[in-house]
Amino acid sequence: MKEFRTEHDFLGEMQIPNELYYGIQTARALDNFHITGLPISREPLFIQAFGYVKKAAAMANRDCGVLAPEIAEAICLACDKLIAGEYMDQFVTDMIQGGAGTSVNMNVNEVIANLALELLGHQKGDYDYIHPNNHVNFSQSTNDAYPTAFRLALYRKIEHFVEILDELQESFAQKGIEFKRVLKMGRTQLQDAVPMTLGDEFHGFSTTIKEDIQRLNEAKLLISEINMGATAIGTSINAPEEYPQIVTQHLRELTGIPVVLAEDLIEATCDTGAYVQLSGVMKRSAIKISKICNDLRLLSSGPRTGINEINLPRMQPGSSIMPGKVNPVIPEVVNQTAYYVIGCDMTVTMAAEAGQLQLNVMEPVIAYSLFSSLTFFGNACRTLKNKCIEGITANEEICFNMVMNSVGIVTALNPILGYEESASIAKEALITGKSIHEIVVLERNSITQEKWDEIFSIENLINPKFINS
Amino acid sequence: MKEFRTEHDFLGEMQIPNELYYGIQTARALDNFHITGLPISREPLFIQAFGYVKKAAAMANRDCGVLAPEIAEAICLACDKLIAGEYMDQFVTDMIQGGAGTSVNMNVNEVIANLALELLGHQKGDYDYIHPNNHVNFSQSTNDAYPTAFRLALYRKIEHFVEILDELQESFAQKGIEFKRVLKMGRTQLQDAVPMTLGDEFHGFSTTIKEDIQRLNEAKLLISEINMGATAIGTSINAPEEYPQIVTQHLRELTGIPVVLAEDLIEATCDTGAYVQLSGVMKRSAIKISKICNDLRLLSSGPRTGINEINLPRMQPGSSIMPGKVNPVIPEVVNQTAYYVIGCDMTVTMAAEAGQLQLNVMEPVIAYSLFSSLTFFGNACRTLKNKCIEGITANEEICFNMVMNSVGIVTALNPILGYEESASIAKEALITGKSIHEIVVLERNSITQEKWDEIFSIENLINPKFINS
Amino acid sequence: MKEFRTEHDFLGEMQIPNELYYGIQTARALDNFHITGLPISREPLFIQAFGYVKKAAAMANRDCGVLAPEIAEAICLACDKLIAGEYMDQFVTDMIQGGAGTSVNMNVNEVIANLALELLGHQKGDYDYIHPNNHVNFSQSTNDAYPTAFRLALYRKIEHFVEILDELQESFAQKGIEFKRVLKMGRTQLQDAVPMTLGDEFHGFSTTIKEDIQRLNEAKLLISEINMGATAIGTSINAPEEYPQIVTQHLRELTGIPVVLAEDLIEATCDTGAYVQLSGVMKRSAIKISKICNDLRLLSSGPRTGINEINLPRMQPGSSIMPGKVNPVIPEVVNQTAYYVIGCDMTVTMAAEAGQLQLNVMEPVIAYSLFSSLTFFGNACRTLKNKCIEGITANEEICFNMVMNSVGIVTALNPILGYEESASIAKEALITGKSIHEIVVLERNSITQEKWDEIFSIENLINPKFINS
Amino acid sequence: MKEFRTEHDFLGEMQIPNELYYGIQTARALDNFHITGLPISREPLFIQAFGYVKKAAAMANRDCGVLAPEIAEAICLACDKLIAGEYMDQFVTDMIQGGAGTSVNMNVNEVIANLALELLGHQKGDYDYIHPNNHVNFSQSTNDAYPTAFRLALYRKIEHFVEILDELQESFAQKGIEFKRVLKMGRTQLQDAVPMTLGDEFHGFSTTIKEDIQRLNEAKLLISEINMGATAIGTSINAPEEYPQIVTQHLRELTGIPVVLAEDLIEATCDTGAYVQLSGVMKRSAIKISKICNDLRLLSSGPRTGINEINLPRMQPGSSIMPGKVNPVIPEVVNQTAYYVIGCDMTVTMAAEAGQLQLNVMEPVIAYSLFSSLTFFGNACRTLKNKCIEGITANEEICFNMVMNSVGIVTALNPILGYEESASIAKEALITGKSIHEIVVLERNSITQEKWDEIFSIENLINPKFINS
Repeated sequence: MKEFRTEHDFLGEMQIPNELYYGIQTARALDNFHITGLPISREPLFIQAFGYVKKAAAMANRDCGVLAPEIAEAICLACDKLIAGEYMDQFVTDMIQGGAGTSVNMNVNEVIANLALELLGHQKGDYDYIHPNNHVNFSQSTNDAYPTAFRLALYRKIEHFVEILDELQESFAQKGIEFKRVLKMGRTQLQDAVPMTLGDEFHGFSTTIKEDIQRLNEAKLLISEINMGATAIGTSINAPEEYPQIVTQHLRELTGIPVVLAEDLIEATCDTGAYVQLSGVMKRSAIKISKICNDLRLLSSGPRTGINEINLPRMQPGSSIMPGKVNPVIPEVVNQTAYYVIGCDMTVTMAAEAGQLQLNVMEPVIAYSLFSSLTFFGNACRTLKNKCIEGITANEEICFNMVMNSVGIVTALNPILGYEESASIAKEALITGKSIHEIVVLERNSITQEKWDEIFSIENLINPKFINS
Repeated sequence: MKEFRTEHDFLGEMQIPNELYYGIQTARALDNFHITGLPISREPLFIQAFGYVKKAAAMANRDCGVLAPEIAEAICLACDKLIAGEYMDQFVTDMIQGGAGTSVNMNVNEVIANLALELLGHQKGDYDYIHPNNHVNFSQSTNDAYPTAFRLALYRKIEHFVEILDELQESFAQKGIEFKRVLKMGRTQLQDAVPMTLGDEFHGFSTTIKEDIQRLNEAKLLISEINMGATAIGTSINAPEEYPQIVTQHLRELTGIPVVLAEDLIEATCDTGAYVQLSGVMKRSAIKISKICNDLRLLSSGPRTGINEINLPRMQPGSSIMPGKVNPVIPEVVNQTAYYVIGCDMTVTMAAEAGQLQLNVMEPVIAYSLFSSLTFFGNACRTLKNKCIEGITANEEICFNMVMNSVGIVTALNPILGYEESASIAKEALITGKSIHEIVVLERNSITQEKWDEIFSIENLINPKFINS
Repeated sequence: MKEFRTEHDFLGEMQIPNELYYGIQTARALDNFHITGLPISREPLFIQAFGYVKKAAAMANRDCGVLAPEIAEAICLACDKLIAGEYMDQFVTDMIQGGAGTSVNMNVNEVIANLALELLGHQKGDYDYIHPNNHVNFSQSTNDAYPTAFRLALYRKIEHFVEILDELQESFAQKGIEFKRVLKMGRTQLQDAVPMTLGDEFHGFSTTIKEDIQRLNEAKLLISEINMGATAIGTSINAPEEYPQIVTQHLRELTGIPVVLAEDLIEATCDTGAYVQLSGVMKRSAIKISKICNDLRLLSSGPRTGINEINLPRMQPGSSIMPGKVNPVIPEVVNQTAYYVIGCDMTVTMAAEAGQLQLNVMEPVIAYSLFSSLTFFGNACRTLKNKCIEGITANEEICFNMVMNSVGIVTALNPILGYEESASIAKEALITGKSIHEIVVLERNSITQEKWDEIFSIENLINPKFINS
Repeated sequence: MKEFRTEHDFLGEMQIPNELYYGIQTARALDNFHITGLPISREPLFIQAFGYVKKAAAMANRDCGVLAPEIAEAICLACDKLIAGEYMDQFVTDMIQGGAGTSVNMNVNEVIANLALELLGHQKGDYDYIHPNNHVNFSQSTNDAYPTAFRLALYRKIEHFVEILDELQESFAQKGIEFKRVLKMGRTQLQDAVPMTLGDEFHGFSTTIKEDIQRLNEAKLLISEINMGATAIGTSINAPEEYPQIVTQHLRELTGIPVVLAEDLIEATCDTGAYVQLSGVMKRSAIKISKICNDLRLLSSGPRTGINEINLPRMQPGSSIMPGKVNPVIPEVVNQTAYYVIGCDMTVTMAAEAGQLQLNVMEPVIAYSLFSSLTFFGNACRTLKNKCIEGITANEEICFNMVMNSVGIVTALNPILGYEESASIAKEALITGKSIHEIVVLERNSITQEKWDEIFSIENLINPKFINS
């Protein structure tokens, strides 16, 4: 038979099954918030980060002489279990909740208190010994503990995402080398432009992602600014004077993350600028990688009635009705995930703007958005590298023939013939269907065959040199 | 020991554990798409809708004489299991996938084929008898089966959401009646305006939601247009001529949903307009209900240093540090969910615009966005009604005192004194802190006490009559 | 030498150049709001709409016996000048202003008052005779006059936009007929799918726009609901009881627009739902027409290294360096304008959500966004029709050759050979580069040449019939 | 009588009025693009930037020996006129155009060519001497000249915007000092929290804007990376080898802007990452300043029925019907402009994602969006400072009374009485309406009057010290 303990808060009493480590306030949250059906334990790094926050706070309180060492010790041991990923099933609060994170903070406070109580040989719920608010949450408020844990988790997730992007850019760079002698037609506005190499194109993909990595690292730095010790609204009310610096120092050491304390705690407590920045940079990555995927789909279009310059790995039959059809499913899923990220940025925008006075109450949906963006898009980018980029092959002959059959190569004759003469040649080619070579060398004798060979040598096309008349 | 069967498609062979009802194409999808970690079975109405689609198709194929009755029968029985919600654990494809829904369609085709095979006494995988493509998917393509199932599921979800909104508007309407004699100050631009009743205000909330219900029902109608029989890209290739009308008729009867066949199947196959419209209307609801929640939070602000006209039910302690604090957590979670919906609209926008030529390949992320919007926001609105609106009480005395102490009531004197004289009175009140009554009746003798009483009677304030000089 | 008159309001006095018809409140607005540098006169339909609103109000006030007939008459004559488009240079308020439209309303009130004064032989500024607030604005508030004028102007602008879309869909429909026998390859996910006709494709463009026209007309209907007589916050304070219905009736007759009075004036005064709906439908149109332009650019890509199925009219040299290059500049400008419209929807979203209590103070930026969306996108769509669609030609031979050279035509053999055999043929074609005909008829003898001719006759490809084995 | 000259391009001939400095390609653009009705001359910094680009190019071409010194000289002199702001009426191309900026680049090339021709004593149109493409555009393509000019103009506009933000943060900082002893109630979630000072609040506004300035300066740095010498698609085709570095050096010297040459010109030519980043940072600023304006409107709400802690300067009468009403019109216009900026970010997002292959053709609408965002929001922020912040005054007594009357001050007793006892006190206060002081000191005797005075001294409330039992 299930046993219960009675817990109370200033709104009343509740019966809590004795097996549970969370208490009355978590139970209320569970009752109040049925939105996504996804518990916060879906974000284990977030729970782990709370473990670090509560441990650092206990240590700092002990150092400041306001928390008995044996209680601090028990809290620290309980926190270690969270850090180790244990008791995840106790973190049941819905990912999206009202209350600016209070329910999550109290969920953590209650679980830690009960774990610590058991460690000291007490019963769960004997809060006289170790109290979720008076001890575990000592010198803290949701206003500082919640965003600090959020930021620690974000920091780690950005690191993971950057690792994935780094591998992705490296795989593009490899392809850049592999394809560096594959001559192909460049296109602007989907119209034939001038020749380039497929290697240049893939190298460009690598470059562009490398730049995003830089932006993400800058955003990570902003995320590492925390407001521990701000307590309620940044006033540091109820915290010992030296506590903020001490707890920050402990946190830095425990996590290895170079957290710094915000200078203006009032501002830091209501400011969501760092989240907006991170979300904007995530959107930037999404836009750019989506554009790359669009390009990959264009370049591999066909095979018979499209551009068909490259082949993507064939991952699965592409149609339930059209035999033999294979679709670029990996870039497609990346595009879609990018749109998800861009949607999340919208959510973050609305939520950030809705902050009022001393706090932004919408932080949980910001957390949900940023966490899922980083997870989903990280997954998508890893998939892109493993299941697509690494296996791409080039159709060299098709690429080369398109170049030599194009009109755009006439551009290379501008410095010799002038824009207007070149334009007249281009026009004739377009109307008659003739090749540029035919018109320029054979009919108009505008340049000699030797000059032609010099200008349109593979070497010069791959690495255009300025050739004057 | 686990047993396996060998399945193949035109890309090769795979070993499939014999216990599984899904086959090689689902297995490939499972391998290819690790994005959200959420399987399509999270949307049971979607799977159920596929059950209806495949059943109607089998019946129509049988009617057209292109599918043997016993095979059709077996497929129908298998579909019934999906409709009943069984075998949900076999729908493992990630919610976001590439391939424009092909993986989901094939997941369904494979599970139904194997269920049907077993019903006929065959082994799973004996596709010579019943084949996922040749039989279950007969006369269909992902291009028509997938969006049709998607639309059926959306239709049901809109219905559920409308039911929730209807209850919500009704609870506001009830409060409108309850508060119809609570006089309070109206505010524009957060500045004191003229008196109104709290009942008017809550009735207005009801009205505005009722209008959203109308828009949702209009959007639902658009969603009920399907393209069964379009097969690949809307050409109806490989479908018997009379099939589209027959399958539509079956679907209408099986589901009770008044689906209609699109007139232009080419257009219908690539068009995402109905989703965009629905998403826009969802956004509209989100905006409006978010605005209402903002108002509820404003009106209940305080209690000592805010507006404090109403009391929201007290759901949970509001702070880990500030004793006695209770926050408007329910409106807050609704606001956040509204921002999620608005973010989803952004995702839908990007995805819809990305459609190319004969198909929009981004439909899965549109499905994910609309499904989760409807679920999450439905949950939020039900919570709003149950845990907030129904328990709201008014602070009548506070409301009334604010009215009589306000400057804005001078507006009621305009028709008698003119705008300029009224403005001068208002100015004096603002500078001196005096009440309008004091200035108008006692000092300036602009009107008599009787006239004052007539104009500022509760009855006239609640239901202003035009009173001329 | 410039002459001045002294005007005052309850904040003080200002010198107003005597030549100006606007007065002190407009002058303050001019001083306060330097944002866009664009005056509201950029939207002549808005000023005209205000003319109608003020005229109808004057007539209704006269009918209710609260405004002297000669004053009403003078106001009406002044309004007629606004309706005729005169004195536009007097509407100087910035398109984006604070104050929820009060500055625009007062700009109008002041100009009309002074025009009316002159008509009666008075001096500008002799407001004792005709006062901007007491007479021109009688029975009104910015809360009702402003949104009503806004809606009238929107209504007209939607009508104009719908006319443009109607011409656009008609030009697509014409092309649909013109190209109805141009056989081409359909593509899903940019990969070769099955044959269709270019006529089907263009007809689909027409269909999709026709559906948008329906949505726009529905949105127009919502826009035609007005709140005249609501006065401050919808209480109808200071308006005669019968006034709202009378003024609405006058407005209906004066404008020919079937305006209806909102039932719940409190709700109507703060609700921006109709704007959000219109904005959403505008976004829908933008998404869909942007998708069409993307398709046009894809289909005309090349000419030598792209798809090159159609030719767009050549509008201008496409490059400052690449001779002969011509770009699809018209679809490109339409895409960009579509993105502008989508951006505006974002602005409208934020602004609508920011409404508080009895009014949405952000209406001016909603007006700016919707007005410019309708104007810019209307211009873009007219340009699209005139300078692009009408001149499109088809490259029939290229289209036909791509079909016969494709692998996708194997789909038509499914009902005869089954999906698996067809898949094996497709696979061989893709690997060897052979045509489907070669493999099926000449090598495998899977079907006879006669059967082939039947299935792949132009007639059957254009209008696929179900052909069983 | 108007005289004309005949100009031609490879599409044909046109008659150009002889008075005009622009030529045939501009005339075609003028004919093709009627979208916004706003010419590019609305952005004088953009034209000026083109002057610098073309001048630097001419100098570099001369240095490389590919342009005759006298032609280079004439071009430079013509450019100087653009730099000086002359001939602005010749820049007539619509702000939004197709063609990826080619029309703007050619508009500039043509005007400069004709100006240079006249300087050398030739007739306009005598392009044999100085040709828009062969000379003015030498070693350039729209692909490099356009984005470079765009970036130079953006750089200057960011500088201006940062100056405005700097003044704005400084005015907040000043108010922070002015109000540093004004004790007030802090609020989280619109509910009473704990005391703080009004100075802290305004100082926080200053801090948060200072952080945005840092982000803007980082974004400015990204903008300073240019791709001159990339010519078509980044291949540097038709440009002398040493040209890119030389032209960049000239540009740096001419403008004083520390431009650097992109390392990967292929990537740089199609990448819009820097614009997305800038747009994201602009959105961030908009969100944060909008939040501040929301706060200002909340804090000044009332005056009788709102929070009324501060007074904003009274800028204009607030209502056409409610006498004496004054609204927070300046924050309101800033909010709206912020929503415009956020809408522009949406446009930029769509446009950036739409880039294909070697170029992003949507750059003109990105330019329009960023230019107008910077201009409008700069104007709004300057207005905010001048017409609002500087004149804000505090209602000190109201602020103080709200603190002492609040329940939230009980938080300061937590360390002495514990969270649970404090909660019980708070509960009693809320139910009975009593003050905390009454309950704690007079009734419960929980602490002495001296202790109370210590804890609730102004000094301790302004600068809370940790006070243990």
